[in-house]
Amino acid sequence: MLIGGVEAGGTKVVCGIGNEHGELLEHKVIATSNPTETLNAVFSFFAEHPIAALGLGWFGPLDLNPERSSYGRLTSTPKLAWQGFPLLDTFQARFPVPVGLDTDVNAAVLGEARWGAAKGLHTVAYLTVGTGIGGGLLVEGRRVHGSMHPEVGHLLVRRHPDDPFAGHCPYHQDCLEGLAAGPALAARWGTPAEHLPDDHPAWRLEAYYLAQAVVNLMLTVSPQRIILGGGVMKHTALYTDIRRQVQTLLGGYLQHPGVSEAALDPFITAPGLGDFAGVRGALALALDALRH
Amino acid sequence: MLIGGVEAGGTKVVCGIGNEHGELLEHKVIATSNPTETLNAVFSFFAEHPIAALGLGWFGPLDLNPERSSYGRLTSTPKLAWQGFPLLDTFQARFPVPVGLDTDVNAAVLGEARWGAAKGLHTVAYLTVGTGIGGGLLVEGRRVHGSMHPEVGHLLVRRHPDDPFAGHCPYHQDCLEGLAAGPALAARWGTPAEHLPDDHPAWRLEAYYLAQAVVNLMLTVSPQRIILGGGVMKHTALYTDIRRQVQTLLGGYLQHPGVSEAALDPFITAPGLGDFAGVRGALALALDALRH
Ligand SMILES: Nc1ncnc2c1ncn2[C@@H]1O[C@H](COP(=O)(O)OP(=O)(O)O)[C@@H](O)[C@H]1O
Ligand SMILES: Nc1ncnc2c1ncn2[C@@H]1O[C@H](COP(=O)(O)OP(=O)(O)O)[C@@H](O)[C@H]1O
Ligand SMILES: [Zn+2]
Ligand SMILES: [Zn+2]
Repeated sequence: MLIGGVEAGGTKVVCGIGNEHGELLEHKVIATSNPTETLNAVFSFFAEHPIAALGLGWFGPLDLNPERSSYGRLTSTPKLAWQGFPLLDTFQARFPVPVGLDTDVNAAVLGEARWGAAKGLHTVAYLTVGTGIGGGLLVEGRRVHGSMHPEVGHLLVRRHPDDPFAGHCPYHQDCLEGLAAGPALAARWGTPAEHLPDDHPAWRLEAYYLAQAVVNLMLTVSPQRIILGGGVMKHTALYTDIRRQVQTLLGGYLQHPGVSEAALDPFITAPGLGDFAGVRGALALALDALRH
Repeated sequence: MLIGGVEAGGTKVVCGIGNEHGELLEHKVIATSNPTETLNAVFSFFAEHPIAALGLGWFGPLDLNPERSSYGRLTSTPKLAWQGFPLLDTFQARFPVPVGLDTDVNAAVLGEARWGAAKGLHTVAYLTVGTGIGGGLLVEGRRVHGSMHPEVGHLLVRRHPDDPFAGHCPYHQDCLEGLAAGPALAARWGTPAEHLPDDHPAWRLEAYYLAQAVVNLMLTVSPQRIILGGGVMKHTALYTDIRRQVQTLLGGYLQHPGVSEAALDPFITAPGLGDFAGVRGALALALDALRH
């Protein structure tokens, strides 16, 4: 049996074919454009492979409340061509098989919890730190939606006393994303994040802000593991710096063995599935859709 | 059929007898003291009533992981007489009936979601603002535990520019609890919170800090409703002030009809069960224990 998975982000779409164990057999990367072009490319990828179920991990905001008539549509998005697009219906019309749908970040956290860095855990957060900051959340085995799309990127953080930068978020200026996403780093320092040297003061501030997001997640949903991915985390020294800052910020309040610098099984970690977390998670959504 | 529920907080214990609909038929309030005295009083209350199931909403920290040998015990608590106390085993030995156990705040959120201000909702947060600040959380119908007890009281908030107070938390100084719990207000202003006049500047700061906790919960777990209870919220003007500050802090980012000041069905609200949220929630735990 073959199943399909699609992870769609703002810049690229990863289509994958998997087997009944959710292993990725084949995949293709497509640039994200308007709905017609993007879906034509996705459909033609799957045309060659008869799939028994499909999972979609899509950029948001999506209506994920099955009780609403707008269920499965994109809602208000700055990508105007996608606004209101009936994503689920369009796929369902093309593929008369069970289709599972969630956000790209919830697909990523699901993939990681099933086969990656959080294998076997039930309460897991996934933060992607890239062009924006987004988060996926699994609580007691369930993907979290609530009444709005969780938008962890806009968490209010404490500004570092050494940071005079006004912030880069159009809504809040100095929220987490406004201080710590890739474009904020570029605007703050005048250099793209990937060109900032290892000893640049940017990284200490970056760890300070991301550590606050980690601490606030620990204090609200207390995940068993927090996975940090996305382009900015390619600066891998951040993992150690963030762990250290988390300990400082907690001030000895919570003891968590995985937070110590010497932890064998670190609480704050990189995606185990690397760039395939999202598409593997989409395969997991397909398998779950098949079962229900 | 009769069932029993106990809500145990740091200062008082509420014991209740309910029927199969979770309605409270009779209750008794006992002062919290050491385990022997406290449980003797609880046991003698229930001695007169044959119960078919029991629910316990107890102050923490509790080990709530059924896979650990310390499951159902109190862990490290400043109440030294209770440290390591085998709560669940002690009750289970006395009452050979199904026993459900959770924290007092999770019992409260469960009670509110079943019969109170969040009736029928699946993702709900409950914050109690009193001697400390604690939180209970229901996500997609499940009570949240994660790998540690969620300690939402110690969220890191942004200090208000007009607030020079160092903060009152022994771990973090100016975390949420260190700035906004009852004792922090008393230390900050030299007057118990209940004696601060309505036009005192304390309330603007208080709303600012509590609004940040609300916003961070909205951005992480996006509850369908946030219930604020506890002694400090007896200053009911806080509800309107917090709603207003939440809108300011969100900066138009999230639109939620219930957050507006004119909302008929407010997103930020008082407990519908008043002081009985915890004991009613304990009855819900008893009913759930009976079913599983
Ligand atoms: N090695 C690196 N170190 C730090 N930042 C990087 C690195 N590589 C890419 N970035 C930053 O990551 C961001 C892109 O993140 P990415 O997750 O790849 O994209 P997107 O969020 O659009 O999916 C850019 O802002 C870029 O500057
Ligand atoms: N009307 C009121 N307005 C503001 N604060 C109050 C009021 N009544 C009590 N408080 C404060 O609430 C706190 C006690 O909270 P409560 O929830 O009753 O107790 P606990 O947290 O110990 O269970 C005290 O710090 C007290 O100053
Ligand atoms: Zn923002
Ligand atoms: Zn604290």
